[in-house]
Amino acid sequence: MKIIVDMMGGDRAPEETVKGVCQAAQEFNASYILVGNQPEIERVAAENQLDIRRFDIVHTAQVITMEDDPLCVVRTKTESSMAVGMRLLAEGKGDAFVSSGNTGALFTGATLIVRKIKGVLRAGIGTVLPFQNPVLLLDTGANVTVTEENLEQFGVMGAAYMRGIYGIDRPRVGLLNNGAEACKGTALQQGAYRLLSQNRDINFVGNIEGSTAPFGSCDVLVADGFSGNIFLKSVEGVGKLLLGKLKGVLYSSPAAKLAALTLKKQLMGMKKDMDPSEHGGAPILGISRPVIKAHGSSDAKAFKNAIRQAIAYADSEAIYDLALCIQRFNAHKKAEQEQQAQEQEPTQQQGQQGQP
Amino acid sequence: MKIIVDMMGGDRAPEETVKGVCQAAQEFNASYILVGNQPEIERVAAENQLDIRRFDIVHTAQVITMEDDPLCVVRTKTESSMAVGMRLLAEGKGDAFVSSGNTGALFTGATLIVRKIKGVLRAGIGTVLPFQNPVLLLDTGANVTVTEENLEQFGVMGAAYMRGIYGIDRPRVGLLNNGAEACKGTALQQGAYRLLSQNRDINFVGNIEGSTAPFGSCDVLVADGFSGNIFLKSVEGVGKLLLGKLKGVLYSSPAAKLAALTLKKQLMGMKKDMDPSEHGGAPILGISRPVIKAHGSSDAKAFKNAIRQAIAYADSEAIYDLALCIQRFNAHKKAEQEQQAQEQEPTQQQGQQGQP
Repeated sequence: MKIIVDMMGGDRAPEETVKGVCQAAQEFNASYILVGNQPEIERVAAENQLDIRRFDIVHTAQVITMEDDPLCVVRTKTESSMAVGMRLLAEGKGDAFVSSGNTGALFTGATLIVRKIKGVLRAGIGTVLPFQNPVLLLDTGANVTVTEENLEQFGVMGAAYMRGIYGIDRPRVGLLNNGAEACKGTALQQGAYRLLSQNRDINFVGNIEGSTAPFGSCDVLVADGFSGNIFLKSVEGVGKLLLGKLKGVLYSSPAAKLAALTLKKQLMGMKKDMDPSEHGGAPILGISRPVIKAHGSSDAKAFKNAIRQAIAYADSEAIYDLALCIQRFNAHKKAEQEQQAQEQEPTQQQGQQGQP
Repeated sequence: MKIIVDMMGGDRAPEETVKGVCQAAQEFNASYILVGNQPEIERVAAENQLDIRRFDIVHTAQVITMEDDPLCVVRTKTESSMAVGMRLLAEGKGDAFVSSGNTGALFTGATLIVRKIKGVLRAGIGTVLPFQNPVLLLDTGANVTVTEENLEQFGVMGAAYMRGIYGIDRPRVGLLNNGAEACKGTALQQGAYRLLSQNRDINFVGNIEGSTAPFGSCDVLVADGFSGNIFLKSVEGVGKLLLGKLKGVLYSSPAAKLAALTLKKQLMGMKKDMDPSEHGGAPILGISRPVIKAHGSSDAKAFKNAIRQAIAYADSEAIYDLALCIQRFNAHKKAEQEQQAQEQEPTQQQGQQGQP
């Protein structure tokens, strides 16, 4: 197992990426290709007394920043750590790629350099939410505008991922919506509901609201990238707000501080449970090889967990399964179209017979 | 001050509405018209030993259920407690109307019976979120599809409400989006961003993400009804999930229970802070008289708080202010259109002069 790592992406690179890779190397059975500015990587390692001699380093001088246009990865910054890393992945020099860099550029590079699985209409960014059960939210921001069929495919792809990584036999797929009834949402959600409920390859459980999603109502939550992103960030924001308020309570008096000490272990456990960085990065689903997006503000631990997820993804059958599901998806669509065409034919013949 | 109350709306009516009104009557200086099934109201009052002789009761036999089509309020169920209550409001028999019934029907009735303020394109349902500062989210579900101009007006209306009810001089208006940059979101958000930032009557602070909204970044959060509803419900869901997890920690051992006792008062305060029912109901903004939607599952306390909000709304200058703002909004739009027309005219004349 060889993991290719973008050392220059994210707000805290290369400090936290170097530390993260070293932590990963201690914990996981894998080898690593570090892509980035070699002198900088070596400087950070020396400063932190970290031994990086066991890693392959591929030097790159260019860096994609958070402000860069996504297309730069295939246009102006083709020699950046991100672009070079993805080319290495595409060439089969490693088994997975991890980056905490510019999301748009990573998504663009994954689609155009690593390339989509055949038949995938749109790749999507999946994020596993730390709810009562892990819930894969797909898409969380890559595709702001989508079609009904894109959403149907997100359901298929998300199910394959949760089967492969979490071992869930028939993942329950829900559609993020503003009500439970089939008629809810915009024309997009109404159309997607119809397609998803007709798709016999997935276990569609209907519309899911944000108020019930945390309580075990589904394993995969399908959304367009806009509302998926709104949902993801509100989960982040509200979680942070509540933990902050709780901290305020626990520091409110000497007696409270004492009580907090008693609860410390359990409270830390709760915080860890709720911490998205504990659950690794976000897989870009629909791409022919594992590409994992770590959070832009990842610290060493979060980056290490993203590497853990990359290893699990590469180790699983998820991509193979996903490709098969998409193949079946397209076969079904073709069969449906042919059937529709056949059904229309006799009508036309009848019409012709009726003519003088 | 006279409040008209729909006694039959919501999952827990008329038990909780009767109790809620009695609590409100004790706390607030107002009189009440109870609209609903008189024998049932009297039975509930007798069962709970509540004196309701001081209230006016208007008997209605029909009830709008949560499953009813919204248009029933003006078609098949015109003698329901909701429809009759809103007619009383429209006729000036009371100063505000409160209902925990079917949201769609209430919104339809508010628009068609009580009627919109002149110049308001679309009314919207506002919900005050219990964040670091109170944030009015508008719209939270009434208008699933909207135009850029609708969103601009939501900003104007929301600001008037926060000025009138919370005394905020220049409410900061944000646009719910998937990123901070002006280019973020779909064409709808991009267009609304442009209009909102050009509108000199409101204090537009740009795009706001769900991750920063809880931390004092704005006073009014403008959204289309679909993503607004997704946001609202995720706030609800995540809040519930976290409070549930916290409860688990506090009951995890005898020592934890003891520590929890010490923190009880502060933790209850925190829970109260986060409890939407403490913050009353949702005003339907853009309607010519105060209509407040209480949560469908309101208990007596939540219903009482919705009545409190109705009183504050009716007591304030918010509707008058809102009407003036909308008048100015339309005057500006008209002036802009005229200016555009004038700017085009000389060009046309030049064009004509150029012709042989």
